[in-house]
Amino acid sequence: MTFEAPIKDMLFNIEHLSGWAEVNALPAFGTLDLDDVAAVLSELGRFCAEEIAPLNAPGDEVGSQFADGKVIMPPGFDTAYGQFVDMGWQSLPHPEQYGGQGLPRVVGAAATEILNAANMSFALCPLLTDGAIEALLTVASTETKDTYLAKLISGEWSGTMNLTEPQAGSDLALLRSRAERQDDGAYQITGTKIFITYGEHDMSQNTIHLVLARTADAPAGVKGISLFLVPKFMVNADGSLGNRNAVRCQSIEHKLGIKASPTAVLEFEGATGFLIGEENAGLGYMFKMMNAARYAVGLQGVAIAERATQAALAYAKERIQGRPVDGSSREAVTIVNHPDVRRMLARMRAVTEGGRAMAAFTAGWQDLAQHGATPELRAEAVALHEFLVPLVKGYCTEMSVEVASAGVQVHGGMGFIEETGAAQHYRDARILPIYEGTTAIQANDLIGRKTLRDGGATARRLAAMIEQTEQDLRQGSASARAIAARLSRSRIAFLSVVDHLLDIGKQHPNAAFSGGVPYLMLAGNLIAGWQLARSVLVAEKALSAGSDPAFMAAKIATARFYADHLLPDTEAQRDRIIEGADSLLELVL
Amino acid sequence: MTFEAPIKDMLFNIEHLSGWAEVNALPAFGTLDLDDVAAVLSELGRFCAEEIAPLNAPGDEVGSQFADGKVIMPPGFDTAYGQFVDMGWQSLPHPEQYGGQGLPRVVGAAATEILNAANMSFALCPLLTDGAIEALLTVASTETKDTYLAKLISGEWSGTMNLTEPQAGSDLALLRSRAERQDDGAYQITGTKIFITYGEHDMSQNTIHLVLARTADAPAGVKGISLFLVPKFMVNADGSLGNRNAVRCQSIEHKLGIKASPTAVLEFEGATGFLIGEENAGLGYMFKMMNAARYAVGLQGVAIAERATQAALAYAKERIQGRPVDGSSREAVTIVNHPDVRRMLARMRAVTEGGRAMAAFTAGWQDLAQHGATPELRAEAVALHEFLVPLVKGYCTEMSVEVASAGVQVHGGMGFIEETGAAQHYRDARILPIYEGTTAIQANDLIGRKTLRDGGATARRLAAMIEQTEQDLRQGSASARAIAARLSRSRIAFLSVVDHLLDIGKQHPNAAFSGGVPYLMLAGNLIAGWQLARSVLVAEKALSAGSDPAFMAAKIATARFYADHLLPDTEAQRDRIIEGADSLLELVL
Repeated sequence: MTFEAPIKDMLFNIEHLSGWAEVNALPAFGTLDLDDVAAVLSELGRFCAEEIAPLNAPGDEVGSQFADGKVIMPPGFDTAYGQFVDMGWQSLPHPEQYGGQGLPRVVGAAATEILNAANMSFALCPLLTDGAIEALLTVASTETKDTYLAKLISGEWSGTMNLTEPQAGSDLALLRSRAERQDDGAYQITGTKIFITYGEHDMSQNTIHLVLARTADAPAGVKGISLFLVPKFMVNADGSLGNRNAVRCQSIEHKLGIKASPTAVLEFEGATGFLIGEENAGLGYMFKMMNAARYAVGLQGVAIAERATQAALAYAKERIQGRPVDGSSREAVTIVNHPDVRRMLARMRAVTEGGRAMAAFTAGWQDLAQHGATPELRAEAVALHEFLVPLVKGYCTEMSVEVASAGVQVHGGMGFIEETGAAQHYRDARILPIYEGTTAIQANDLIGRKTLRDGGATARRLAAMIEQTEQDLRQGSASARAIAARLSRSRIAFLSVVDHLLDIGKQHPNAAFSGGVPYLMLAGNLIAGWQLARSVLVAEKALSAGSDPAFMAAKIATARFYADHLLPDTEAQRDRIIEGADSLLELVL
Repeated sequence: MTFEAPIKDMLFNIEHLSGWAEVNALPAFGTLDLDDVAAVLSELGRFCAEEIAPLNAPGDEVGSQFADGKVIMPPGFDTAYGQFVDMGWQSLPHPEQYGGQGLPRVVGAAATEILNAANMSFALCPLLTDGAIEALLTVASTETKDTYLAKLISGEWSGTMNLTEPQAGSDLALLRSRAERQDDGAYQITGTKIFITYGEHDMSQNTIHLVLARTADAPAGVKGISLFLVPKFMVNADGSLGNRNAVRCQSIEHKLGIKASPTAVLEFEGATGFLIGEENAGLGYMFKMMNAARYAVGLQGVAIAERATQAALAYAKERIQGRPVDGSSREAVTIVNHPDVRRMLARMRAVTEGGRAMAAFTAGWQDLAQHGATPELRAEAVALHEFLVPLVKGYCTEMSVEVASAGVQVHGGMGFIEETGAAQHYRDARILPIYEGTTAIQANDLIGRKTLRDGGATARRLAAMIEQTEQDLRQGSASARAIAARLSRSRIAFLSVVDHLLDIGKQHPNAAFSGGVPYLMLAGNLIAGWQLARSVLVAEKALSAGSDPAFMAAKIATARFYADHLLPDTEAQRDRIIEGADSLLELVL
């Protein structure tokens, strides 16, 4: 299964959708131009196509194995990880102060997608390390940063997030792991953590576990959770590795997908841990880290959709079966000529490009949120970014399951045979709407913290931006005008739902939250379609300037397809949310 | 994972949706009353819950294995099959003349669903035997019937369908297997067949392969295909088994799901075969058989949806996680209390009951099509039945994938762990929209043979029946009136699409067929919603008579949920079909 990174589409998004001019002008960045970005992403694309993607199917077949407390990675993973570290790919988006390359998020997002499309199981290790780096950068002391960050940013050490316990999944209030303060200021951590991605492996020299636990006198519930750093090997004062810490991998899970990625049960048996930030403030820190992780999982959705689409398209251009329905040939033709195969592939592509465009748009706001020139600019960017993250996570991952499923369908009977490879994407994708917070958790966040809390201000701000795009599109081609009409209907549906939620949110929370996932899917669909619509404005200008006509025409066609085939769902979602709560809540289950 | 057959819902459908009074009055049947039917289905339900369902997860884990040309079934399958045969379950819907029990299809359909819900991999063996019986009943000579039918109907022998070859899947015109006539009137069959369900196994004493092949002088394409019967063991004149025939299992496939069901590559090496019916008429015979098989696959969709729903509901009532969004408890509650979990479960149930109801309605027309009193009655029933089969196959199987996926989601992280069992349904379900003709193949059939050919007459006939139900509902409760309103909008969307397809079908076949699957999904959604709406008319009468209030109220609530949450999609589908063909066909892939 060959893989080619969609560099051109990514560069288009970075340049035209993510506010590149503004982002790159920030004092925090500004040393790269777009040609440099292209060179970096192309080199990563080449490396991933040649070294990482070929390990995807064999990694799935063999899986990571567990024996004698150790995890054995599938053949080739260890070497590939070494190359990944040596080439400096882990360091791409991290601060130069600790050896990173300081690239803006809008570039880092593309890199994350490429790596995940090549091999999601492999990519999870760097992805979790990114999360740990993010957390330490945000809340750790200077000493902690100095001890751990450089090695994490180089990738020599990897990171994990230890939240879940058997009785505490989505609900961290139920967390039981304990932390006992020692005389030297360190803590002894005791408890069982499950579902720990890359919780045990030997690809990196050390693993830095970030662990949620309760101190002895902590209040009950989420207000009594603290964050600890627990290294697999203790780190000596000179930075060298010391003794093995008392954290043990008890087993790894037998999973539906991402089988090469070891999902560990970790037993902390009085392991030495170091408090990060303040006691009892751990959940807040975790949330900061989780925003980045959730966004990255959304990118995994785009990535697997891209991979599944490439595979299905290649098969459809090769497999000969059936005569054309229009009688244009009496011989059997490749199945890409059959209208429904076209429909499936077009839908796969539109969903993938729409998700990618939404993610690029979101990344731009994240860069501005972190590095914007004024507090006002940053505050605005924070609000938009935080509204968009659950959409990227929820919509892109739910749709990735649909896309991967369509990928199997395009392959027909062969899709059901494991050796074909389409089935792996279908299995792998299924975790994405679950981990780092299920789609319902994202939807609760979207309604509660992102919509009701500011009285719908951010939602309306986005709607106003969309309306501006509609006006611009109305000056364009027939396709542009058709897209404007669809976008307008979807925006109105969105605003109706926002008004409805604001109306009933306080008095009827069950009714409001029962529409949460439909609201998230409506909003994600709208924002993705809007980004493709913005692309049309760019593409039509480029076309009339004669620039890259094939790419630009394809972009317009995809956006039009999206508008015609995806956006109609927004109105069905509106009806469900506004008219469907009673029948949902009345049902006796 | 316990399983309980949904007998009560099935009996409701048989009595009220399938035209039971009319069907049971047919001279072909008429010896059973509904209490007898209840007893039969309950006994089958008990047997399946106790003996067959417990083999489902272990069968998936072990899978069928291949060694030395033989298939080794997972432990327990052989014994269970023996019990299945001894108890006479195979014979349920088949003619008494050959030892069958002669039950109408409306009862047989429920039995098929129960067996498949318990264990789809197991159920595939009897399902393929049913197909072979159907074919022989329709076209075989008296001698052939006398030789093979009794043993197939008892289940002592099993049957297979051999259509697919590596280069000929959906497209049977590309078929290459050869049949050479011998002096004794038999044929020598040579060729490779793939994807042969239960093509090799030892649960039954003999396997009767029905094989498509070309005779020496056959015309090219589909008009040169003949049907042959190729027994695994030759049958002597006295009915005893003779020599092994020259058909050999070369390997079995490594599949995404239904792993216990052996999917064989069969090599016919000059195997002795007997012509069934006329030379070159094989495809027509296969289509007859396929209508029954396609309908049965639709039932598999309902079955797996039922199983996935039962598992998810049980988990949701047990798993404690999170406080209620309405603040009604400060303690964590079972997740079934959370609005989005309710939404998922309600949707799973509504889709399952809607599919079951549509299948029951369809079965009634099949009984009337076969046994109706007059040619006019039979012709009408044939038209309706043939229109409905692709909907049952396409809609129920596509939705089963969605339901099984939601089943994983309800389980959260545990859903991704294989031992939980939810993942198996997600894997198993994925074959259903593919085998016995992909959803696109069903959609082509629906447009071409079932809608355009009669100028939309059958489609409009159904729409008129739906309109009558709307009128009846308008005399009912507020829920009934709300359902009528939704049904009306969906029916109008359906009719717009039918008109559109009739308009453009001849001049723009690519445009028409590009809307095929959306049209199928729209129609399936509408018919399933309509059957639940018909159920409301029954349930409201029963309620006012004080009969079974809990069941009847639940039926009304489910129908209302279906109308509020599923039917809105019909209008989005209409928009896609009518406005979306251009952008689909323009896209360069």
